[in-house]
Amino acid sequence: MQLGVIGLGRMGQIVVDRVLAAGHDVVAFDLDEAAVAAAAEVGADPADSIADFLEQLEGAKRIWLMVPAGAAVDATLEELEPHLEDDDIVVDGGNSKFQDSVRRAESCPAAYLDCGTSGGPAGADLGFSLMVGGPEAAYAELEPIFDAVATGPDGHGHMGPAGSGHYVKMVHNGVEYALMQAYGEGFELLYEGRYDLDLEDVSRVWNNGAVIRSWLLELCEEAFREEGTDLVDVADRVEGGSTGTWTVQEGLEQEVPVPLIYTALSERFGSRADDGRFSRRLANRLRYGFGRHEVPRRE
Amino acid sequence: MQLGVIGLGRMGQIVVDRVLAAGHDVVAFDLDEAAVAAAAEVGADPADSIADFLEQLEGAKRIWLMVPAGAAVDATLEELEPHLEDDDIVVDGGNSKFQDSVRRAESCPAAYLDCGTSGGPAGADLGFSLMVGGPEAAYAELEPIFDAVATGPDGHGHMGPAGSGHYVKMVHNGVEYALMQAYGEGFELLYEGRYDLDLEDVSRVWNNGAVIRSWLLELCEEAFREEGTDLVDVADRVEGGSTGTWTVQEGLEQEVPVPLIYTALSERFGSRADDGRFSRRLANRLRYGFGRHEVPRRE
Amino acid sequence: MQLGVIGLGRMGQIVVDRVLAAGHDVVAFDLDEAAVAAAAEVGADPADSIADFLEQLEGAKRIWLMVPAGAAVDATLEELEPHLEDDDIVVDGGNSKFQDSVRRAESCPAAYLDCGTSGGPAGADLGFSLMVGGPEAAYAELEPIFDAVATGPDGHGHMGPAGSGHYVKMVHNGVEYALMQAYGEGFELLYEGRYDLDLEDVSRVWNNGAVIRSWLLELCEEAFREEGTDLVDVADRVEGGSTGTWTVQEGLEQEVPVPLIYTALSERFGSRADDGRFSRRLANRLRYGFGRHEVPRRE
Amino acid sequence: MQLGVIGLGRMGQIVVDRVLAAGHDVVAFDLDEAAVAAAAEVGADPADSIADFLEQLEGAKRIWLMVPAGAAVDATLEELEPHLEDDDIVVDGGNSKFQDSVRRAESCPAAYLDCGTSGGPAGADLGFSLMVGGPEAAYAELEPIFDAVATGPDGHGHMGPAGSGHYVKMVHNGVEYALMQAYGEGFELLYEGRYDLDLEDVSRVWNNGAVIRSWLLELCEEAFREEGTDLVDVADRVEGGSTGTWTVQEGLEQEVPVPLIYTALSERFGSRADDGRFSRRLANRLRYGFGRHEVPRRE
Repeated sequence: MQLGVIGLGRMGQIVVDRVLAAGHDVVAFDLDEAAVAAAAEVGADPADSIADFLEQLEGAKRIWLMVPAGAAVDATLEELEPHLEDDDIVVDGGNSKFQDSVRRAESCPAAYLDCGTSGGPAGADLGFSLMVGGPEAAYAELEPIFDAVATGPDGHGHMGPAGSGHYVKMVHNGVEYALMQAYGEGFELLYEGRYDLDLEDVSRVWNNGAVIRSWLLELCEEAFREEGTDLVDVADRVEGGSTGTWTVQEGLEQEVPVPLIYTALSERFGSRADDGRFSRRLANRLRYGFGRHEVPRRE
Repeated sequence: MQLGVIGLGRMGQIVVDRVLAAGHDVVAFDLDEAAVAAAAEVGADPADSIADFLEQLEGAKRIWLMVPAGAAVDATLEELEPHLEDDDIVVDGGNSKFQDSVRRAESCPAAYLDCGTSGGPAGADLGFSLMVGGPEAAYAELEPIFDAVATGPDGHGHMGPAGSGHYVKMVHNGVEYALMQAYGEGFELLYEGRYDLDLEDVSRVWNNGAVIRSWLLELCEEAFREEGTDLVDVADRVEGGSTGTWTVQEGLEQEVPVPLIYTALSERFGSRADDGRFSRRLANRLRYGFGRHEVPRRE
Repeated sequence: MQLGVIGLGRMGQIVVDRVLAAGHDVVAFDLDEAAVAAAAEVGADPADSIADFLEQLEGAKRIWLMVPAGAAVDATLEELEPHLEDDDIVVDGGNSKFQDSVRRAESCPAAYLDCGTSGGPAGADLGFSLMVGGPEAAYAELEPIFDAVATGPDGHGHMGPAGSGHYVKMVHNGVEYALMQAYGEGFELLYEGRYDLDLEDVSRVWNNGAVIRSWLLELCEEAFREEGTDLVDVADRVEGGSTGTWTVQEGLEQEVPVPLIYTALSERFGSRADDGRFSRRLANRLRYGFGRHEVPRRE
Repeated sequence: MQLGVIGLGRMGQIVVDRVLAAGHDVVAFDLDEAAVAAAAEVGADPADSIADFLEQLEGAKRIWLMVPAGAAVDATLEELEPHLEDDDIVVDGGNSKFQDSVRRAESCPAAYLDCGTSGGPAGADLGFSLMVGGPEAAYAELEPIFDAVATGPDGHGHMGPAGSGHYVKMVHNGVEYALMQAYGEGFELLYEGRYDLDLEDVSRVWNNGAVIRSWLLELCEEAFREEGTDLVDVADRVEGGSTGTWTVQEGLEQEVPVPLIYTALSERFGSRADDGRFSRRLANRLRYGFGRHEVPRRE
């Protein structure tokens, strides 16, 4: 099969590599010429413009977008859509908001698949987990590609209609926030607690047979091995949060409580309060108000 | 009625003042001679030792302890108990753990009343709220004293048997933590939010007729008036937490969820993490592990 | 001053009563003729249509809307706007979303004031708390009306530009959710806990001098007095949630953690899970998976 | 090596099987004769009393306790201790409270190892994760046994002094509560959300390459496969909670916030409120108090 790939960042490059390795052909385009050259070097056909890219695609077009979520997806679609027909297929493999995917699927002349992609850089060797939404026939048509990009046939699935792939990925990420924070609470308690523990050793033992073993826990073990048990050089301001925010918003709309996900997200917000937390300043002043506890002052 | 008061800190002094103002007699003792002298100045009979204190009490003894919770209460009782009989009454007006009060009530030869006291320094003028546990007859006997120390007859009540006074006070304080944090969240959102608001003005309007009006909100208004709307000089490390911790522990034992109280308490713990939060450092390293987000480093 | 009032439900009727009582004139309209008749009975000039209502307003129009938030406000404005000019003033005293108020203020030919109103039915006697956003001159012009509707001059304030009144009211309601839940946790712990307590008595003592005294706590006292200490007849499914949801959404947007407000809101969502909570069913099955704890089955 | 095993429940039997399979000798005792017979059948030397058990142990004794945490451990130790010397070794492989293990280590004449054991019934084939506290020399001496019981040399570790093994296991379980709840929130949102999803399929795709893949997620997949995607027959009252409670208590003592673990634990408490939640009944009555929302009544 021939696949066109637009967007050759870290994730896009992995898609190219895995699809080529599975014996398919790839036409590759990116605004960054160096990224196109790198794709060409491993066997993709380079395109130097969207026009050139489209021209190189033969028969019904199969296009994988791996561009940043948001405006870049819309801009790319705007260029592509005049040249698409209903037997073409477009896959958005990025981290788009599911509502955007629903909207795009409606206006796109081609069959539109929204594909949540999880696994990070480790997916280069292992393959990704792919959650795909959109027309079932288009999904079936692209199965050989999904087999290649995913860990294999078990690593992808058709979730449901338009938007459902990114919806499931959104919830995946919400859960990811909570899992990270759950391990964080455990290790923080061990770190601050009453024994002097080697956290690399703890996570190694846990990763071998314990109920809470997981890939994230393997990453914890790696973190302690590479950074030391106290992670002493790592800062504690945590960025990110968009997919977590979307998950909480959907929980509000569906009236489903997601307090662990919310708390994990809040923890990140709190980590960025450079000027301190107003609620704490107020608490100090109130403790003076009702108990004459001395108001601590900023230094 | 004659009342002996041991412990003449801010709260003990208010007890002395209010009991005297109601026409009763007071014998006052404290390890700090200046505090005894101050009590004498407003009309109390000064005692220069526990022995002297006991000697000055006539007939069945009525003794109010207003010493710091913990060891000081036990130490004082140890000195008093050889001289107490079963028609004597001891009131512990401090912030004792209810289990301690149950234990002390069992071993004290006198009737023992555990009295949760709320209201802070403002109680000087207004009177306190008194939650009293222990033998009902002893409570009835001391009603004139409670009328004087409390806001009046409505400001005190017999909660139940030994320990129940401090139990109700413990829960009161747990609720207090959550209320403070609830107002804190609201004002923090207004402060960080999309309008440039005068928070003194907001709290003034709320205190006049709004559903959330309260004494704590009046203290917020006072805080903004005296410190400015941004509380700019106030530090954001919050001390305290013992009664909140006890409340959560009791919730665990009773299997009653108290997530707001727990979260308010956690917020204080988090405010004291001088070296940053370990869980956040781990989160940053994990974000590198699965997403190659650059690890932020400490400066 | 002459005020036109549209919307004569419980809250609108109180506005009419208080404005009349302060010596002003009122023209009153509602789709419900009985409500108009009731307003006429206490001294308002009845209008039998929007056209009639507008005709009766003399000079620059001052109009107070007290209709349900949402579509009813837009529908009313659509009828009014062709007849409004820039020296007219419209007040929306309902519980509108602040973004709607910003939008309406932009398109309304008259000066538009968004007025958050708090206090509930108790406001009939006491007056309301009014948080007003919009043009300062319009606010100043209507001060006599606000003095009458609010508890007095202290019960209202100009918060800032368009939307700020309903923004402050939104946060007020978010805090209200958390306060209710905080008291709920405390009373639930006392109710389930180790003493057999009279909760009316507890709340009465707390309301007299304790740090956590408040109007909501007075309502708790009233609840226990009228329903009994165990609230035995009251169901435990809790409705409502829109303003709490808006507050959490704004917290997400501003990246300000509001975990107590979120948890209070979640508690309501959870109370409505008629078919049980899916996460709990899953927990039971997982406990079997790793620990062979027998899976409890539905009866 | 010869190992004596006391306690032949599901977990003890697995210990016997794995130690025998590794070529060691086992003397097995349990109060339940059938369990002893079962152990004998697979090659263990049966003991019909503690005395018989002790007699069959040759040289320095190596004893593994796999009896229920709490009183059973103390009762067994009481019987054993008169016969133990300081070159003997006792392992407590159960789920004991770490403070109990510290106490027992102090009074036991033998070297005492507290060994947190994780992995559940799946450990029969795979081996367990073993977190061991106590004297390092005793741990080293028993390494061949730990190699056999664990997944292998990577599946066990010496955490630190007495109590540290059960301490790390306690935190492990706290994290386990939070992980279960995190997945529960995600699947509940997917279940209640806007797409009709096959949750077995979702978890299968996630388990192949996604960031949140884990053993617990494999158990979710198994749950949906065996129970159906809606877990329709599973009840939603969740038992258990002791190790979670201990973790939260230790968090309180160390002043380390563990809100996710606390919330997961609370969720279980809430699931057992057979008579409804008091705080919700109060919320309903308060909504009447300030807003005249009709009070819903129990049916």
